[in-house]
Amino acid sequence: MTIPPGIADIHSAAARLSGLIVETPLIESPELNKRFGARILFKPETLQRTGSFKFRGAYNKLSSLSAEERARGIVAFSSGNHAQGVAAAAAMFGVKAIIAMPADAPAMKVGNVRKMGAEVITFDRVRDDRTAVVRSYVEKGMVLVPPYDDPAIIAGQGTIGLELMRQAKALGVSLDAVVVPCGGGGLSSGISIAVKDASPDTAVWAVEPEHFDDTRRSLIQGARVSNAPGHTSICDALLVAEPGAITFEINRKNLAGAIAVSDRAVAQAMRDAMACLKLVVEPGGCVGLAALSSGEIDLTGKCVAVVLSGGNVDFSTYAEIIAAS
Amino acid sequence: MTIPPGIADIHSAAARLSGLIVETPLIESPELNKRFGARILFKPETLQRTGSFKFRGAYNKLSSLSAEERARGIVAFSSGNHAQGVAAAAAMFGVKAIIAMPADAPAMKVGNVRKMGAEVITFDRVRDDRTAVVRSYVEKGMVLVPPYDDPAIIAGQGTIGLELMRQAKALGVSLDAVVVPCGGGGLSSGISIAVKDASPDTAVWAVEPEHFDDTRRSLIQGARVSNAPGHTSICDALLVAEPGAITFEINRKNLAGAIAVSDRAVAQAMRDAMACLKLVVEPGGCVGLAALSSGEIDLTGKCVAVVLSGGNVDFSTYAEIIAAS
Repeated sequence: MTIPPGIADIHSAAARLSGLIVETPLIESPELNKRFGARILFKPETLQRTGSFKFRGAYNKLSSLSAEERARGIVAFSSGNHAQGVAAAAAMFGVKAIIAMPADAPAMKVGNVRKMGAEVITFDRVRDDRTAVVRSYVEKGMVLVPPYDDPAIIAGQGTIGLELMRQAKALGVSLDAVVVPCGGGGLSSGISIAVKDASPDTAVWAVEPEHFDDTRRSLIQGARVSNAPGHTSICDALLVAEPGAITFEINRKNLAGAIAVSDRAVAQAMRDAMACLKLVVEPGGCVGLAALSSGEIDLTGKCVAVVLSGGNVDFSTYAEIIAAS
Repeated sequence: MTIPPGIADIHSAAARLSGLIVETPLIESPELNKRFGARILFKPETLQRTGSFKFRGAYNKLSSLSAEERARGIVAFSSGNHAQGVAAAAAMFGVKAIIAMPADAPAMKVGNVRKMGAEVITFDRVRDDRTAVVRSYVEKGMVLVPPYDDPAIIAGQGTIGLELMRQAKALGVSLDAVVVPCGGGGLSSGISIAVKDASPDTAVWAVEPEHFDDTRRSLIQGARVSNAPGHTSICDALLVAEPGAITFEINRKNLAGAIAVSDRAVAQAMRDAMACLKLVVEPGGCVGLAALSSGEIDLTGKCVAVVLSGGNVDFSTYAEIIAAS
């Protein structure tokens, strides 16, 4: 596997994942199409194994390890979706897994990781250095499965782009744009490789929470910059300090740009996803739909794919957001 | 078209609906499979056009009318899902539609019907005779589109059974049972025709809300009986007085039986659908999942399909049920 990964690595990942992942369908809403004056095709990775896209990259990474490496066990840090993807993949390979999760991660995510047999250790999202938390395990020989800045992880997430382009073609449409949630950039970079390979003219947009728009500002600067501390967002899945090195190298070549959306816009998008698509989408998974109302993407008369990247949200959080309509 | 409709009528309906409906996927949850000791395949008609299966029957019915009949306009009575299906089909045919809806129908359902251009008149679910409400329009020449007791409606809903059997076959599984929500019996009777044609040994179960188990008691009696007045249920989509004449004639031949589920079991099933499937399912749409916990269906080691028939639920109602976990 090359660094950065290429389209061949994504095809290899798709072959490994075949039969193990859900090929999530494209779905659309006449009401949302009318509202945006566009044809919007949603790719609900909410319906993916573990409730988010993360299983794709995690399983591909574990596949790429040697039997000797797998026998040493794996360790990962994650706010929850990567944790679930890694735990599910580890269970399938019969590999011991230790997952470091922030103490304020949604209870549903922590509970699901434990149900799949992984050991959970917690850290403070603000105070602790998340890489330091897992260092002692790596020093003991366990293999780190990073959340995004890894060629096997990026290639696994890129399989969504392959499916998307094939499904759009089967519908007889060509995509003007693809809109993707962005934390560390693994999902957007992986998808961008597959989309640009099939259709160089399709614009790929990354979407981030307000105050966590490190990729947006890094693209403008032409170099990686970090987020200022002291902010919060309901998008727990997308709260990273700065773009990954490998992911940013890909994203700076492939992305049309990045868009920041407010928590308020995300909450409205979650209600729209419930009312118009009947899909439970977590805050971070819904930023792409929120970005359609930003005015930054040319929509009129276009055909646009939006990745809904996850649906792991606690009952109480979801009820509160839905009831606020 | 014969009365009752047969498998040929369902194949004709499928041909008319091709390209206009969503072929809803089969989805499953490792967690629910583990809990029930079975492979459970969910058919989410929540993702269907108008958010429920009802568009299938309504469009098939409008297709079966002559141009002269369509020119006179159509009228229907419905708690909401049939109303939306009829309004969407009428809009596609450019036909005037008047829909009588109970005054306590979910606001989302009423709003959606109006958005699609139909005229809504309201009636009292308990006090008014719903057929009398629409009689004056029928006397003026408008064509009644009944909610279930009509061969074209039944054949349209039956297309779900065709898809289900084809999709199960593609997965390489044979279905031991198919579990279907039941109000007047249009969905269960239509699906039962298609399932029994493809696989006579597959058991088809209807599921009703407690106190509205007219089909269950009618099957036991061997003749149609009515529900006692004075009860309520959160399953607004399934509240009818008695089984349809045509639907019951089919159901008494084809069903393994019917199961009644409590509002409490339905609410738990809605939370399970959110947590494990990431799907928004309305109360009446979720009775099939609720029935899996009843102990009445032999599950161990079996493969069972469950139809999730609709997802049209108000924000406030859904938030209240989800937060009650």
